Amino acid sequence: MYEWSNPEMLARLNSTSGTVGFNKWLQPRALAAGNGMVEIVVEVRDDMRQHHGYVHGGCIGALADMACAWAGAANEGRDVVTSNFTVHFLRPAQGTTLRAKARTIRSGRTLATVEAEILVETPGEAPRLCATALASIAVLPEARPRVA
Amino acid sequence: MYEWSNPEMLARLNSTSGTVGFNKWLQPRALAAGNGMVEIVVEVRDDMRQHHGYVHGGCIGALADMACAWAGAANEGRDVVTSNFTVHFLRPAQGTTLRAKARTIRSGRTLATVEAEILVETPGEAPRLCATALASIAVLPEARPRVA
Amino acid sequence: MYEWSNPEMLARLNSTSGTVGFNKWLQPRALAAGNGMVEIVVEVRDDMRQHHGYVHGGCIGALADMACAWAGAANEGRDVVTSNFTVHFLRPAQGTTLRAKARTIRSGRTLATVEAEILVETPGEAPRLCATALASIAVLPEARPRVA
Amino acid sequence: MYEWSNPEMLARLNSTSGTVGFNKWLQPRALAAGNGMVEIVVEVRDDMRQHHGYVHGGCIGALADMACAWAGAANEGRDVVTSNFTVHFLRPAQGTTLRAKARTIRSGRTLATVEAEILVETPGEAPRLCATALASIAVLPEARPRVA
Repeated sequence: MYEWSNPEMLARLNSTSGTVGFNKWLQPRALAAGNGMVEIVVEVRDDMRQHHGYVHGGCIGALADMACAWAGAANEGRDVVTSNFTVHFLRPAQGTTLRAKARTIRSGRTLATVEAEILVETPGEAPRLCATALASIAVLPEARPRVA
Repeated sequence: MYEWSNPEMLARLNSTSGTVGFNKWLQPRALAAGNGMVEIVVEVRDDMRQHHGYVHGGCIGALADMACAWAGAANEGRDVVTSNFTVHFLRPAQGTTLRAKARTIRSGRTLATVEAEILVETPGEAPRLCATALASIAVLPEARPRVA
Repeated sequence: MYEWSNPEMLARLNSTSGTVGFNKWLQPRALAAGNGMVEIVVEVRDDMRQHHGYVHGGCIGALADMACAWAGAANEGRDVVTSNFTVHFLRPAQGTTLRAKARTIRSGRTLATVEAEILVETPGEAPRLCATALASIAVLPEARPRVA
Repeated sequence: MYEWSNPEMLARLNSTSGTVGFNKWLQPRALAAGNGMVEIVVEVRDDMRQHHGYVHGGCIGALADMACAWAGAANEGRDVVTSNFTVHFLRPAQGTTLRAKARTIRSGRTLATVEAEILVETPGEAPRLCATALASIAVLPEARPRVA
């Protein structure tokens, strides 16, 4: 289904991510990873919502940040860290699942530029685009694999 | 100490925030709010960290988002929602407390522009600036108080 | 060729744009406009370059700003003004023509979110993506047509 | 008056800038440069305006870009190039002079983060803040001085 996905890279992201601090809380699950791209889903829980019942923008931003960093790592196979990101919210995130699709649009020696879309989904309904993001991901000099 | 703070506005933010979803998890505590500004602290927990032990950028972004929205609300006394935000990470967030200082730099009829600094603190050490952010906060037409 | 283009909207943009200040200098020419999208070309001149001979980032940013505003106007048929924009530079803009493709991804009552790609072209060579941008475009209350 | 300014750095920026393409057109004049900061003025001309007579957002963005890059160079004394920038427009830029104040808030090995304020001035009136910006400036490996 995801022809661009690299099973080894995908397995490494998923096996290590869930054991660590904030990732253990957010529980992102990569469905595909490779060629500078990732697709990640997060099941929405009540502790991710804001006062109107939508997913909190801070959680959507955090998922966007994570997806962009993972996409940068999926390109470089190197340890990365987000340098900056911009997120625009498009509509209230009402649903049961968040899906982030991130794609590296330019990969340089020390910096990757990545864009991401965040969709919100409810069973039986069409996915809705709830945010779009643009990030600069710093590629670290050392060849450590990124685990989270 | 915070001459610009409005006790009533501060009390309203703090009394309602902690009861709701993501805010209940993040536990932001406003120390001051008024005149388009807020100062918020968050105690760092292990479930906010990334794989190197620093606070995860996603949490820092979420706090920046929240601080900017609260500052916009502290200016308007109206319900607000973040339209977009940009966050630049400056150094690893290693410490026990995050402190966000947000300030409205322009308040229009339907949109406020807010900047925020996120500092990380460790007892006995000088605070360090770990991120800076710029946000557009949409001011909603209805005069509902923002609770989170 | 551009099935989404609206000839009347396109003619209006092009007939009025070139007579005004900065647009007269930049000389953007819309090839298509409609359905919240525009495609604009600019012929590169020496007074648009920086010290290495590439098109100056400031010019690329200005074109991105303009393309996003025009796309917002092409959606609303209303006067618009850029509220904020973010541009990421991907590679040096070496070539003879800049081409901006902007697309409204969300159009609200008072704000549109628009993304743009800026390509640089040289006759006989493949176009290269040199920048990507994301903008918030404020839709003004009055129903004046945007001319520039 | 500008205790932080470095006369040699300032002279180098001003002597080389005006001879080159876009800078020759925009005519930025640095009043001070050093310690990761610059202050630059631009005299507003008719070919910088938009259809309502205000300075075009594209020109303001270009000045913000330039000021951030120069501030990054004023810190590093190295050749630099803008990686990305975000600009938020705060009010219409009506006046005769633009003034950009840029300040490096974090200077890393390969990247500097710089913030800038753009003011618009009219003789006899108080300056007004018309835009605020945040930029990532890439510091190039080679030790070439930046000339524009």
